[in-house]
Amino acid sequence: MPFPEIAWFQAAPKRRRFLAGISGGADSVALLHLLHRHGFREVVVCHLDHGLRGRASTSDARFVEKLAASLGYPCESGKTDVRAVMRDHGDSLETAAREARHAFFALCSRKHRCPRLLLAHHADDQAETVLWNLLRGSRGLSGMLENQVLQVAGRPLECQRPLLLLRRDDLRGWLSAEKLTWREDVTNGKPIAVRNRLRHEVLPLLSDIARRDVTESLVRAAGSSCEHRVIERWAVKQADVLDPQGRLHLPKLRTLPRELQAACLYDYLRNSGVTGLSRELVLRGLALLDVDGPPAVNLPGGRVLRRRAGRLFMA
Amino acid sequence: MPFPEIAWFQAAPKRRRFLAGISGGADSVALLHLLHRHGFREVVVCHLDHGLRGRASTSDARFVEKLAASLGYPCESGKTDVRAVMRDHGDSLETAAREARHAFFALCSRKHRCPRLLLAHHADDQAETVLWNLLRGSRGLSGMLENQVLQVAGRPLECQRPLLLLRRDDLRGWLSAEKLTWREDVTNGKPIAVRNRLRHEVLPLLSDIARRDVTESLVRAAGSSCEHRVIERWAVKQADVLDPQGRLHLPKLRTLPRELQAACLYDYLRNSGVTGLSRELVLRGLALLDVDGPPAVNLPGGRVLRRRAGRLFMA
Repeated sequence: MPFPEIAWFQAAPKRRRFLAGISGGADSVALLHLLHRHGFREVVVCHLDHGLRGRASTSDARFVEKLAASLGYPCESGKTDVRAVMRDHGDSLETAAREARHAFFALCSRKHRCPRLLLAHHADDQAETVLWNLLRGSRGLSGMLENQVLQVAGRPLECQRPLLLLRRDDLRGWLSAEKLTWREDVTNGKPIAVRNRLRHEVLPLLSDIARRDVTESLVRAAGSSCEHRVIERWAVKQADVLDPQGRLHLPKLRTLPRELQAACLYDYLRNSGVTGLSRELVLRGLALLDVDGPPAVNLPGGRVLRRRAGRLFMA
Repeated sequence: MPFPEIAWFQAAPKRRRFLAGISGGADSVALLHLLHRHGFREVVVCHLDHGLRGRASTSDARFVEKLAASLGYPCESGKTDVRAVMRDHGDSLETAAREARHAFFALCSRKHRCPRLLLAHHADDQAETVLWNLLRGSRGLSGMLENQVLQVAGRPLECQRPLLLLRRDDLRGWLSAEKLTWREDVTNGKPIAVRNRLRHEVLPLLSDIARRDVTESLVRAAGSSCEHRVIERWAVKQADVLDPQGRLHLPKLRTLPRELQAACLYDYLRNSGVTGLSRELVLRGLALLDVDGPPAVNLPGGRVLRRRAGRLFMA
């Protein structure tokens, strides 16, 4: 059964090395077979056992190792105890699992000298992510990017998602038609209960009300939100609000619309290594533009954003 | 009972004339009383009977007329038969009702020489609008703006929504505490079934899953989407892609990221009076940037976007 053409598989160089995050579920198994069939040679299969499903977890790992071997790809297997990390750090299961995966992928990246990681997220994942981020009240509409550079342990890791516009059912349909097997119920550390409810309760209800498959709508909305981010980045660059010493130049900043001032300040703080940036924090920072306002604002991590002589800077 | 301070009521000049769209429902009745209590003198109450609820519609109109008289405001009442418009034009009920309201408000605007219209939409309306636009697959995340200029019958009508950050329950609670009455079930031409399902099925389900009141999250997301629009407008202006004849300058356009090219072309087409712009149409227009691509693209209304001598223009 021919698979619908995906531009990524045509465009990417076949001899380039890629890490591939493979859980053993249908999506990542499809990704791996597609890589193989399109002639990609230098794929490193990376599987992290989250230790969440006891013996089934171990079987998942064995399944992925065998699959990698059958395709002639090397396999890196890791094991972690996400629940223990969660207990120790007070993180949510989702956060602990994500951090464990990132640390594992960073390890694989160093070992294989490969900064590129392929992930098998598809359109249905994207729709759930968009909804979930919307419910959590994250800034604007945000979905996953087809290309995204993560900073993990101080090094960049380029994540690519070649399947992001494909539907889950199409991937499974193709696997079945090709008589390829996968592991069901593979855990990937997502908040299973929430994901399941979004998938089985919310999306069908929304599709019923809208009388259309709303997954497409959500994926499209995520796409145009990515466009917004590109335009915002261009605007921040164009605004050119840094002085030669890399401090924020207040007279320039004051000529911009408030919304772009916020984007510039957000960018400056992030580039200065401030983490845990909230909308409220950026708004408090913007109050420094007013000469009658406070001369400094405290930031997380004991740092301070200060106004002096027409400049804002980190002190 | 003191009402939470709303910046709009403090900032707006009390002697300025405003039209107010008043259906007779709790939200618009609250808006009208708040205007009165804050000392606004020049309010013109505008009520359109959509003719959708028979005798109840007429009672709504009488209620609004009496309320206006009791507050000393003039009242403009109009009547339309939205279902007939719907049949004649093949529009949806929502579209027919909206167009009837806009035409009526434009009439009131001319008669009273007032380009400002106040509308009583609140945060719960905003959350439903965000969800509904998301489900319909509109571009990006879009909600209602606190300030929005509508072009109605070729003239600008400035819509303002002073209650947009307030919650429905707070408005009703205030009315009840003040022993002020309103009309229940006032129809405003929205797709009642969809709105009701979003309100009574979707929002409670989402709040249950997220374990928080997601209305706040949706309103916040709409806000940051408005910020995006401001930044996009700034970026389009900054990109400065028109030549002295008002045509799109291709060499300039080609220096921009694809996403901003799309925004510039969208802006150019809209300013040229092209209606019914879809994402697909803009993408087809962008194909003209490629000198090996087609030299012209057909637009709705028999118009043509053409490439010649390094320019794109309407022919």
